[in-house]
Amino acid sequence: MIEITDFAKGIEPVDRGVSEDAARRLDNLTKPKGSLGQLEDLAVKIAGIRGEMNPSFDDKYSLVFAGDHGVAAEGVSAYPQEVTVQMLANFIHEGAAINVLGNQVGAKVVVVDVGVASEEIPESVVDRKINPGTDSFIDGPAMSRGDALKSVQAGYEVVGELIDSGLDLLGVGDMGIGNTTPSSAITALLTDSPPEEVTGQGTGIDQESLKRKIEVVKKGLKVNDPDPEDPIDVLSKVGGYEIGAIAGAYLAGAAGGAPLMVDGFITTAGALLAAQMEPTVTDYMVASHNSVERGHEVALENLGLDPLLDLDLRLGEGTGAALAMNLVEASIAVLNEMYTFEEAGVSPGG
Amino acid sequence: MIEITDFAKGIEPVDRGVSEDAARRLDNLTKPKGSLGQLEDLAVKIAGIRGEMNPSFDDKYSLVFAGDHGVAAEGVSAYPQEVTVQMLANFIHEGAAINVLGNQVGAKVVVVDVGVASEEIPESVVDRKINPGTDSFIDGPAMSRGDALKSVQAGYEVVGELIDSGLDLLGVGDMGIGNTTPSSAITALLTDSPPEEVTGQGTGIDQESLKRKIEVVKKGLKVNDPDPEDPIDVLSKVGGYEIGAIAGAYLAGAAGGAPLMVDGFITTAGALLAAQMEPTVTDYMVASHNSVERGHEVALENLGLDPLLDLDLRLGEGTGAALAMNLVEASIAVLNEMYTFEEAGVSPGG
Repeated sequence: MIEITDFAKGIEPVDRGVSEDAARRLDNLTKPKGSLGQLEDLAVKIAGIRGEMNPSFDDKYSLVFAGDHGVAAEGVSAYPQEVTVQMLANFIHEGAAINVLGNQVGAKVVVVDVGVASEEIPESVVDRKINPGTDSFIDGPAMSRGDALKSVQAGYEVVGELIDSGLDLLGVGDMGIGNTTPSSAITALLTDSPPEEVTGQGTGIDQESLKRKIEVVKKGLKVNDPDPEDPIDVLSKVGGYEIGAIAGAYLAGAAGGAPLMVDGFITTAGALLAAQMEPTVTDYMVASHNSVERGHEVALENLGLDPLLDLDLRLGEGTGAALAMNLVEASIAVLNEMYTFEEAGVSPGG
Repeated sequence: MIEITDFAKGIEPVDRGVSEDAARRLDNLTKPKGSLGQLEDLAVKIAGIRGEMNPSFDDKYSLVFAGDHGVAAEGVSAYPQEVTVQMLANFIHEGAAINVLGNQVGAKVVVVDVGVASEEIPESVVDRKINPGTDSFIDGPAMSRGDALKSVQAGYEVVGELIDSGLDLLGVGDMGIGNTTPSSAITALLTDSPPEEVTGQGTGIDQESLKRKIEVVKKGLKVNDPDPEDPIDVLSKVGGYEIGAIAGAYLAGAAGGAPLMVDGFITTAGALLAAQMEPTVTDYMVASHNSVERGHEVALENLGLDPLLDLDLRLGEGTGAALAMNLVEASIAVLNEMYTFEEAGVSPGG
């Protein structure tokens, strides 16, 4: 039987020495100290994660993990469940936002089915389906403990293979109608927040549906009573297959020494689960943006991550992660390509 | 004699029809309506400015206007004045932040001397020098009215030539030790704000120097008593050559139908002057970021601009403008390359 420890192993601390070298060089570059703000912090972080001052980014990936949710039947989403599989086709035909934004930054988009409630899955989608959708968590667990572990394993293995083939920057995204609801339940539990403070309007439900959604989250937590100290218990009782896969993807990415771009609320829920399995994983994470979804900020704070962008995004798919990859590359270019005061013959300030 | 009206003419309203088409298409793309937030607003704006749904960005420019400031002698900066000319050499050798960030997005960097206090100007710098530095404005005007008009003309003509050669996206930046001080004076006047609310730490002065800087701004405004209704009076009395050139650059860019990336506090001061000459110019402006410099946000609000990035930048040179060019291109890619619900066969939400 697979266990949490299988996913948590092999994550080394990031290289503080390289980070310190990067910070020192940034202070000597021809600009006022710290004047590139978060871009400098980002360069320091990325250099430490990659263990080198000038890592290349030739194999960027945007992974989209897809799954369906029994809880969607409770009227918690503005979209019907069939949209999940329809969007898989859209990803494959390169018509979705993540295709366009991945393409902009040169990231390859890989779509992984871990739990879509359809048999009409396009051929190019990576098939790691565990079940065709979770059960609704309002009257019992979303999935079995064994299936929860399988979902983490799916994400872990997919990313492990990409690491072996050279992946050097990992964007992660989600597709799954209804998946802000389990993300709210997970976030409420793992950040110890009241459900109403971490449950939002998702893709755009009205106030009445939002009230219902909050009740659904509360009921799911009450009925299932997950143990917040046991991430697999949380995942199996109120989670989703793609959320488990995202957690596994982050753990494998960290074990492989790749910077991990966190996207919106769903990937942050996966990040919370991953951090519960192995806290060191957060040192590899970069928060790409602060989304509109309330709860996202709470989760990012809990993870100790400071988001780069704040563009009122609320789409998912890894779109914010792809947008922020440009900043990652820009930060490393600044670190390596700018001249120092000495190289440029510029008087340092006092 | 040149007059303000020479720079204000020829700016057409942006194309509202194309903006409406863009907004309609965005609402039909395979994503929840509005879920790409500011990126969607940006696409709508850029389409209207360029007058087409799918403009190309093959001739992006980052212009750096450089000038020195008599007021630097009052101890308002953390750097000695000679850094201005030293940085010109750094720009030409491609060692500065704007070189690296311009290169990242494929923008050509052009450096223009409108008032650097040195005769050792590198050859590749465009020579539009009006005078070697302004006079200190604490006991009289920074420059004559005629020279103020010449500085606007310099920026206007440089950009006019680039427009003729195909410029399709304009980033503007500044270099000039001491230039947050005149920018504070201009911003205080044109936004009707107390100097202490729009005067900040620039490249990194301490609290004592900040107090002195605020006094310098107050004294300059009192001694010179500029007429806020007359932007050339403001520019000549408490401005700087590069700030006038920036205003002219924006006016010429708008006349040429180019999106205008506003950078930090200094370019925003130039934008305020340009808007005073011809309010329509702000419809062509995109605020790239919200800098650390207090006063920047006040100026952006006055211009009615909502910044894209908030990365604690405080460098200038057009660095924020270059970073945000990626978002401009991404927004237009989303608008044109994503599939509609109908094209993708995805059920629209309700």
